[in-house]
Amino acid sequence: MTSMTDDSNGVDSTVLWPRLRFPDDEYRERMSRFQGVLVDSGLEAAVVSDERMTWFLTGFGDAFPIGSRARPRVLAVPAVGEPTFFVHESTATTVREMVWFDDVRTYSTLAEAPLSEIASVVREAGAQRVGVELAGQLQPELTPGEVTRLQELLGGPATDVSAAVWKVRMTKSPAEAERVREACRITTRAYARFFSSWPERITEREVMTGIASVIRAEGGDGAWSVCSSGRGQYRRVDGVPRERVVGRGELVFIDCGANVGGYWADFSRAGVVGGPSSDQHRLQAAVWEATCAGVDAIKPGARTCEVARAIEEVMARHGLEFSSRAGRYGHGMGLLTTEPPDLSSTDETVIEAGMVLTVEPGVIRKHGIFHCEQNVLVTADGCEVLSLAPWELATL
Amino acid sequence: MTSMTDDSNGVDSTVLWPRLRFPDDEYRERMSRFQGVLVDSGLEAAVVSDERMTWFLTGFGDAFPIGSRARPRVLAVPAVGEPTFFVHESTATTVREMVWFDDVRTYSTLAEAPLSEIASVVREAGAQRVGVELAGQLQPELTPGEVTRLQELLGGPATDVSAAVWKVRMTKSPAEAERVREACRITTRAYARFFSSWPERITEREVMTGIASVIRAEGGDGAWSVCSSGRGQYRRVDGVPRERVVGRGELVFIDCGANVGGYWADFSRAGVVGGPSSDQHRLQAAVWEATCAGVDAIKPGARTCEVARAIEEVMARHGLEFSSRAGRYGHGMGLLTTEPPDLSSTDETVIEAGMVLTVEPGVIRKHGIFHCEQNVLVTADGCEVLSLAPWELATL
Repeated sequence: MTSMTDDSNGVDSTVLWPRLRFPDDEYRERMSRFQGVLVDSGLEAAVVSDERMTWFLTGFGDAFPIGSRARPRVLAVPAVGEPTFFVHESTATTVREMVWFDDVRTYSTLAEAPLSEIASVVREAGAQRVGVELAGQLQPELTPGEVTRLQELLGGPATDVSAAVWKVRMTKSPAEAERVREACRITTRAYARFFSSWPERITEREVMTGIASVIRAEGGDGAWSVCSSGRGQYRRVDGVPRERVVGRGELVFIDCGANVGGYWADFSRAGVVGGPSSDQHRLQAAVWEATCAGVDAIKPGARTCEVARAIEEVMARHGLEFSSRAGRYGHGMGLLTTEPPDLSSTDETVIEAGMVLTVEPGVIRKHGIFHCEQNVLVTADGCEVLSLAPWELATL
Repeated sequence: MTSMTDDSNGVDSTVLWPRLRFPDDEYRERMSRFQGVLVDSGLEAAVVSDERMTWFLTGFGDAFPIGSRARPRVLAVPAVGEPTFFVHESTATTVREMVWFDDVRTYSTLAEAPLSEIASVVREAGAQRVGVELAGQLQPELTPGEVTRLQELLGGPATDVSAAVWKVRMTKSPAEAERVREACRITTRAYARFFSSWPERITEREVMTGIASVIRAEGGDGAWSVCSSGRGQYRRVDGVPRERVVGRGELVFIDCGANVGGYWADFSRAGVVGGPSSDQHRLQAAVWEATCAGVDAIKPGARTCEVARAIEEVMARHGLEFSSRAGRYGHGMGLLTTEPPDLSSTDETVIEAGMVLTVEPGVIRKHGIFHCEQNVLVTADGCEVLSLAPWELATL
């Protein structure tokens, strides 16, 4: 990061939390990869404003934003050369301290990005073919109206840049992978602690908030969680807490994850109050076998649809159907809990070392949702499992 | 809400957390107001997908979402009649349980909204003039590319619907106001508890995470916080935590808020380690006087720019300048910590009973940021202050 000293009193203010900011070289490497992908895609520049993507490329921001939408941040990236970052003047001090490049330009309007200046910078760089976030699970801070206006200012329709964004973000650096690993360690510990201190009486909502509290207590910077319980009610797993008390014999399904320095974990585990029935155990074991088949199929060079097929073979052998709840058998993970690619029959992404994937076949029955999600990091010749909590249904 | 009983076993699953879901009549009233504004705006329909706006109108979702972007939710609202909600089939069970209307349609693609079906519903309703979220601090779950494609399917450019959205959301119902009030109560208690148990040694990051923990312990469903400290470093208030230890004589500025059932508080307080100097006290008192002038100017019928002017008069008398950090003297608050309108010289919104506003003039000096934000609810003839923590700089 730029070593900045406050000019008024000599206090060095570059004491950023190490878990937050990566070393400059990490950002240079990311930018270089992104620019390489732009060149490969025939693009001469890109304009990005998705908050997680500007955080990823610039180093400015928090691990876990709950932000105002009044001051959009927009990054113009030429295919060759240094980027230009447009930020509201109110944040300029922190931005200049945190980013690794020099060209930070400020504006003073609220809820309005400086589109003319952004277009000028792109045009001055001589870029004709410009990528903009038009699709692909990105949420630009530019509004749809601003995206349209920016394209007009640039002289015509832009190209969707989301494939280039995900090409870079899907593959994690060692430093990023370590954050995901730590998020999974924390989540693993949280499951052990939460399941082993199960109270006499607990509601679904208390399960949801309780596991999140334990994740934070174990060191998570943030936490998400969902829970479902109740015979015949396992299609209801949407993060909407209920006050219903979990009953004896009921399977309690939890899906959750810690955030560490911006990076998420996302894996489910479950238990049964009083212990699982033999049929519950049998189903969990069958789903676990399918999950392991998916994990075993993950290695550089394999396609995500091949992993889906490996899972389906085991499920078919056990007479288990594809769960339309998820719509896929797994997904990428990183700065969002769910990112491209999908593990599905229609996704043909070639797996590369450094990807972080979830593997999560599951089936829903009256007496439970059977789903034991794994998080893995793709290595040179296979993958490392990061979600080390036991797969068996806990006795609660 | 639709009283839904699980057909397989007769278990009533409508035991939603009361803090989360409002009664059906609340949603009918919101929809009726929104449709009235559409009619007043000359619009025959609207298509909205901003996650907070679909939550606000339908009742489906969580108070505090950390969502996947793989399954966009899109609501088509005719100016007259019942809305149609498009959701991924995976969430259909919960959606049908939670929403107050019947027409829920599902799709099975991932990261792709059913645009043709949405356009058909709008066309079948005979709507020509359609409002879409194109601007105004809304973040549609439809991507910019999908917004463009939807307009093509609808036969031409749509109208920006954001003014109609904010017209409805700016004015809170009594039930909404009570959630904001409770969020402010929790935040008030959190300041008292946090300031009164100040440790010997604490870093800026520990202040940020510590106040958030106290807010959750006091009953907040969520919490946000920022902190700044250190002589000459008070322009640095961007939610980016540092490891620096807060020193003796330093002013510690905190801005934070609880979330209660989806609704935020947002107010700052500060203290000085060892107690404030007379100059620090003098500046805080001057800013407080300006803040009170703003609060006193808030009543139905007044314009937001008039409130800004009332604040500026006091600041001018004390020789204090407008703080470009914020770019405004306050803002609306509700499902987002910052919402329209702005308290600024250029915003001419007419204040109405039920609005929730923050009032926050502030100045930055080497020895502190002086800013004592108030949150108020506009009443029939003035406003009720919700942020009841003492304005004076605490002795830490």
